[in-house]
Amino acid sequence: MTKINQQWLLASRPVGRIKESNFKWHESPVGELPDGEVLVRNIYLSLDPTNRGWMNPTATYLPALELGDVMRGMAVGVVEQSKNPHFAEGDLVQGLLGWQLYTTSDGRGLTKFQQFPGVPLDAFLGLFGMIGMTAYFGLLDVGRPKEGETLVVSGAAGAVGSLVCQIGKLKGLRVVGIAGSEEKCRYLTDELGIDGAINYKTDNIRKALRQHCPDGIDIYFDNVGGEILDTVLGQINLFARIVLCGMISQYNATEPVPGPYNLVNLLVRRGRMEGFIVLDYYDRADEAMAALAEWYFEKKVQYRTEIVPGLKSAPTAINRLFDGNKSGKLIVQVSEWEPAG
Amino acid sequence: MTKINQQWLLASRPVGRIKESNFKWHESPVGELPDGEVLVRNIYLSLDPTNRGWMNPTATYLPALELGDVMRGMAVGVVEQSKNPHFAEGDLVQGLLGWQLYTTSDGRGLTKFQQFPGVPLDAFLGLFGMIGMTAYFGLLDVGRPKEGETLVVSGAAGAVGSLVCQIGKLKGLRVVGIAGSEEKCRYLTDELGIDGAINYKTDNIRKALRQHCPDGIDIYFDNVGGEILDTVLGQINLFARIVLCGMISQYNATEPVPGPYNLVNLLVRRGRMEGFIVLDYYDRADEAMAALAEWYFEKKVQYRTEIVPGLKSAPTAINRLFDGNKSGKLIVQVSEWEPAG
Repeated sequence: MTKINQQWLLASRPVGRIKESNFKWHESPVGELPDGEVLVRNIYLSLDPTNRGWMNPTATYLPALELGDVMRGMAVGVVEQSKNPHFAEGDLVQGLLGWQLYTTSDGRGLTKFQQFPGVPLDAFLGLFGMIGMTAYFGLLDVGRPKEGETLVVSGAAGAVGSLVCQIGKLKGLRVVGIAGSEEKCRYLTDELGIDGAINYKTDNIRKALRQHCPDGIDIYFDNVGGEILDTVLGQINLFARIVLCGMISQYNATEPVPGPYNLVNLLVRRGRMEGFIVLDYYDRADEAMAALAEWYFEKKVQYRTEIVPGLKSAPTAINRLFDGNKSGKLIVQVSEWEPAG
Repeated sequence: MTKINQQWLLASRPVGRIKESNFKWHESPVGELPDGEVLVRNIYLSLDPTNRGWMNPTATYLPALELGDVMRGMAVGVVEQSKNPHFAEGDLVQGLLGWQLYTTSDGRGLTKFQQFPGVPLDAFLGLFGMIGMTAYFGLLDVGRPKEGETLVVSGAAGAVGSLVCQIGKLKGLRVVGIAGSEEKCRYLTDELGIDGAINYKTDNIRKALRQHCPDGIDIYFDNVGGEILDTVLGQINLFARIVLCGMISQYNATEPVPGPYNLVNLLVRRGRMEGFIVLDYYDRADEAMAALAEWYFEKKVQYRTEIVPGLKSAPTAINRLFDGNKSGKLIVQVSEWEPAG
């Protein structure tokens, strides 16, 4: 039976917010598999703020997509057919498999992995994937926390942020999270047990930070950029570290966004602001996975996923990242998964 | 004979540019020296961009001055009288001795030093003082250069900048300087031998950087902040380092100054931007002094000083730092100095 591929192609560049019309749905038969290649059926597709930057005409930390390309996206899938000696039918793989049902690959950029017992497959796009590694290396390697310091996290109820908060508590930090609803703030304080939560939509952030961080701010894990970064810079301690992990507040901007007015504080307080992309840490993945697995099985970290059914929903679901109306890591279910055994 | 002290007191906070009326000239007799104290006659007073920040009502890396305080300033002087066992008449000292002819001190914050043969006393406020240490530790410790990398320096013909340029060349870097006149640019290329110089008043900085830095920018030693920082951020390489040493472009600003629009590049290129104040490195002064002395006596670094006569001139002379019409380290001669022997 001929397999029919389903794909979302990049049809136009978004101006501001992503529209469904920026993508074109494309169906075509999957051809004969060439020698040396593997055919992967994608199961879970990760939706991440960074996807927005990939749609722009200029390169980010990855080359820009061309119009007509399959939209780039991180996913996990299963090998359905292999003419490559490094992969066998049934292997689980992850990589930039794209917004499509089937991916044909020569194997470069595909990583095989084993599902651990008791861990759902979608977690390999989250806690045991880029998200977990981002939180782990961003906080520990770039932030270099010392016990007793104060950590502020923006996007704190998000996939990365909620892990950063929990790792911060495990490392003995005072942790204050910034999120966009009362429900999220309650989740942070009541479920994750952090020391304070600020609703940036209703609270005066400057005053709330002064209240929740009486000893100032030593580490800021920044997922949002913009005004919140600026406000935090006004309250950093000597030798503070600012981990620039994302700038979601400006990904949809249609005008240039000014940097922080308080940048001079970075000089005066001898702070360090450092950009961070998890791709640079893939050679140390085992270290993060071992620590995260230990914490997960000891129930010291918890982790939420929201799974949206159907590849067709991806272009609309992605805006939930920018609207903030989701709970946990946002994932699209591309096809069914029945674990063996 | 009663000694008469001469002092410049902070009379009002400048709004924008410093005016002479922000200071009040004060003369009064020097009283009897209390036990435990030393009387220093100041010889050379250092004028530095950072002085402007000290005049503001808010603390910088040092507490704010009160109105009526003697203006703060780094100086070298000679002990004229001592009732402190750690100091003897004739000792040379440096420290924040202030804008005054005589300083009475309990010794805290005073550093004794020996004048090297062949080195003029004013060099201890420059090459062998804060300036030399700023260039040395800022470039080497914060910038962490690797041979063959490209270094861009703003304020490149200034006291710190011209040393950073020369140390950069000694470390095997491609060095491009940004300065404010053709004469300064010629000094940088013809006298100091750097690879390229850009006149920010007449050149298109973005295009000139592209031309002079064909392999991109690995290290930016920033003395100025503002638009030049923004433009450089647009051309940084992966893992670039930005040493925030000064932001002279905005010290006189009367409105909040936006940070760099290109800050997102720091994230995407995984750059590190770090504030730097030389005070944090005083415990490693010997290391810098040894290296600078070796380079100086081997004629591998050169160094210019412009000495303005008379303490009375300080309030007007200081604006030359912001106007850029000076050549080398700006110093006020407060009193005469006749080395012994």
